[in-house]
Amino acid sequence: MYYIRENAKAILEENVAKYNRFKELNLKLDMSRGKPCVEQLDLTNGIFDVFSSKDIPIGSQDYRNYGIIDGIPEAKELFGALCGVEKDEIMVLGNSSLTIMYDTLQRAMQFGVDGNLPFNKQEKIKWLCPVPGYDRHFAITELFGIEMINVPMLNDGPDMNVIEEYVENDSAVKGVWCVPKYSNPQGIVYSDETVIRFAKLKPAANDFRIYWDNAYMVHHLGKDVPLLNLLQEAKKYGNEDMVYMFGSTSKISFSGSGIAFMCASKHNIDSLKKLMFFQMIGPDKIAQYAHVKFFGSVENLLKHMDKQAELLKPKFKVVSDVLNKELKELCQWVEPRGGYFFGVDLPTGTAKRTVELCKEAGVVLTEAGATYPYKNDPNDTSIRIAPSMPSIDDLTKAMEVFACCVKIAWAEKEVEKE
Amino acid sequence: MYYIRENAKAILEENVAKYNRFKELNLKLDMSRGKPCVEQLDLTNGIFDVFSSKDIPIGSQDYRNYGIIDGIPEAKELFGALCGVEKDEIMVLGNSSLTIMYDTLQRAMQFGVDGNLPFNKQEKIKWLCPVPGYDRHFAITELFGIEMINVPMLNDGPDMNVIEEYVENDSAVKGVWCVPKYSNPQGIVYSDETVIRFAKLKPAANDFRIYWDNAYMVHHLGKDVPLLNLLQEAKKYGNEDMVYMFGSTSKISFSGSGIAFMCASKHNIDSLKKLMFFQMIGPDKIAQYAHVKFFGSVENLLKHMDKQAELLKPKFKVVSDVLNKELKELCQWVEPRGGYFFGVDLPTGTAKRTVELCKEAGVVLTEAGATYPYKNDPNDTSIRIAPSMPSIDDLTKAMEVFACCVKIAWAEKEVEKE
Repeated sequence: MYYIRENAKAILEENVAKYNRFKELNLKLDMSRGKPCVEQLDLTNGIFDVFSSKDIPIGSQDYRNYGIIDGIPEAKELFGALCGVEKDEIMVLGNSSLTIMYDTLQRAMQFGVDGNLPFNKQEKIKWLCPVPGYDRHFAITELFGIEMINVPMLNDGPDMNVIEEYVENDSAVKGVWCVPKYSNPQGIVYSDETVIRFAKLKPAANDFRIYWDNAYMVHHLGKDVPLLNLLQEAKKYGNEDMVYMFGSTSKISFSGSGIAFMCASKHNIDSLKKLMFFQMIGPDKIAQYAHVKFFGSVENLLKHMDKQAELLKPKFKVVSDVLNKELKELCQWVEPRGGYFFGVDLPTGTAKRTVELCKEAGVVLTEAGATYPYKNDPNDTSIRIAPSMPSIDDLTKAMEVFACCVKIAWAEKEVEKE
Repeated sequence: MYYIRENAKAILEENVAKYNRFKELNLKLDMSRGKPCVEQLDLTNGIFDVFSSKDIPIGSQDYRNYGIIDGIPEAKELFGALCGVEKDEIMVLGNSSLTIMYDTLQRAMQFGVDGNLPFNKQEKIKWLCPVPGYDRHFAITELFGIEMINVPMLNDGPDMNVIEEYVENDSAVKGVWCVPKYSNPQGIVYSDETVIRFAKLKPAANDFRIYWDNAYMVHHLGKDVPLLNLLQEAKKYGNEDMVYMFGSTSKISFSGSGIAFMCASKHNIDSLKKLMFFQMIGPDKIAQYAHVKFFGSVENLLKHMDKQAELLKPKFKVVSDVLNKELKELCQWVEPRGGYFFGVDLPTGTAKRTVELCKEAGVVLTEAGATYPYKNDPNDTSIRIAPSMPSIDDLTKAMEVFACCVKIAWAEKEVEKE
């Protein structure tokens, strides 16, 4: 049956009947959380076994003691190589890149960026937000009272015409949130052209920075899709101070006990460290050392990520199969090439209703609108599906419920229009 | 020879001769850093041996995964018991209490304390600073442009008449830094009366908070000197929301890889967590679990601290012996009953010169004035000695140099006056 208005009533009836049978199953399924599953975490368990007391270097720099504010040299070397930067272009810090981003922005608010006026003392601050995007990014800028501007995501990254227009003409625009590789939630990789256009920006504001959250840099599902190195590209145009790059092992090793890092020009790092001094003595160097011992090299780390991909691929396939089989006519999405999510566009005005229907049937989805600034998805269309946590069986069941709910939400609306 | 003006010339000559012999030794000694020594850190090495992959609880809350913003229940229980608070009165967080203090104050600056106007938007903010005190505290308040007011330390804590006068009459006074037990640098323990007077304060400002940095809560050198529990005392006067208490295992387990915590009323904790959400996903729960496994109970933790004391006691004795033998006439100090430092008052106007002389002879002391806000010790008298890091031999030599330099600095000044 085609999904056209004439068929809406029949489709509604059929799917409500199906839906009621789902409800009788008392399901408790969760596709909302971008968390690794137990089996993925198990891959890192060995981190405690390759590492014992006698391994901790004790020399002029005892890693058990205070100090080394920007991370141990071994960790800078490993993660610097991973990120394609020099050792004076990286700081290896605590267990969360979200915290580094928050702290960096809070410092900009309170003290200003590299000698410029604190954001708190400037008239108005604006931020560009490619949508759909990561809710925790938007939550930070909203908290600070920064005006967020939606920028549409295209298949190769944010619409660069919009980005250039704002950044180069409005000096109130101080930043942009980017997840450039396997983006959250669509799994899109920014094209070379997109990265180069970012690198070439001529910002109206001195204190404009690109917040480049490379959270999924090695989180391919099939073949790795290469991403140009923004910091290196920016150097070609004398723009290296415009770039902050962030990353972590939260979805490489343990999500709560990983290592986070920030890459930037030497000038920016020096400028940031001066203020970081007041907030911290140093990161957990033993956790850093454990990671260095466990992974050993970029090559090994990539092999480890192949194992992660093997665990995730069948789950992404379940989602893809159901979407292709059931929802091709109603929904739009990009097949994610990595990362943790599917970003799915439902028929206009049905996302909230779909999430609500799913919830009533025991299937938790990420809140509708969560992927937009102010949780306001103007077309009520965007849904984020997180396949990593549930088992294949649970996921299959949950996706069936989801497909059924999308159809009901669409049909309800069509019937209403009659 | 008595240290009176008549003898100054002779004392100067004698000690300059001695000093020149010290210089020929090309010493490289450091009494500046409040860091544990290698042997102290070795006490915790076992933390990796009691702990392996299979120990990590995996259940509804997998400690390897994201989440639990305020710490794992086992850690709240252990450190809550240590601090004498309930499990809803403690958050167990990252590796640094300094970071918790900084973040708490930064939140007060940006967002205000518990619904009050952000400090950033208030006319003027003042902070009480018992002196001598901890340089890293003062550095934070100075960074935020907060006006710091010196409060003299007495033998049983800060001068409470001064504290009460300011707190109860000046609504610009929003906080006070305290190290209530084995204070930095003097090793003073606040008396019951002092703690009770803190607990009873009637602040002019709603958003006044006591920053109670109980960094050395179990760091006795001989018999433990008990300290009243400020949060529990404050409850008696309905003042529990006035208190933030901080602590960490930085000088219990590993200095860079310990566990830090914050205790406060349930109301304050709830209020703080709402904002913390934007900055963090959760602390390193595996590090927390390792600490719980390693220490097991408060009783074991205290036994561990007895071992730390055994390592520190002979070092503190060296300092005490030299002070008593050589500098009784010239200096004043309190015998520290715990903690990491001696606070020594030199003759007025000689602290800077003494540090300079020591440095030239290869002995590094904490910068003179460091224990005062703005690094401004008005009488140039206060010196902090940190005996923990050097070996007994090095410390003995360093203290001999120190005594010689104090005498020279005093004698130079006396001779000048003639």
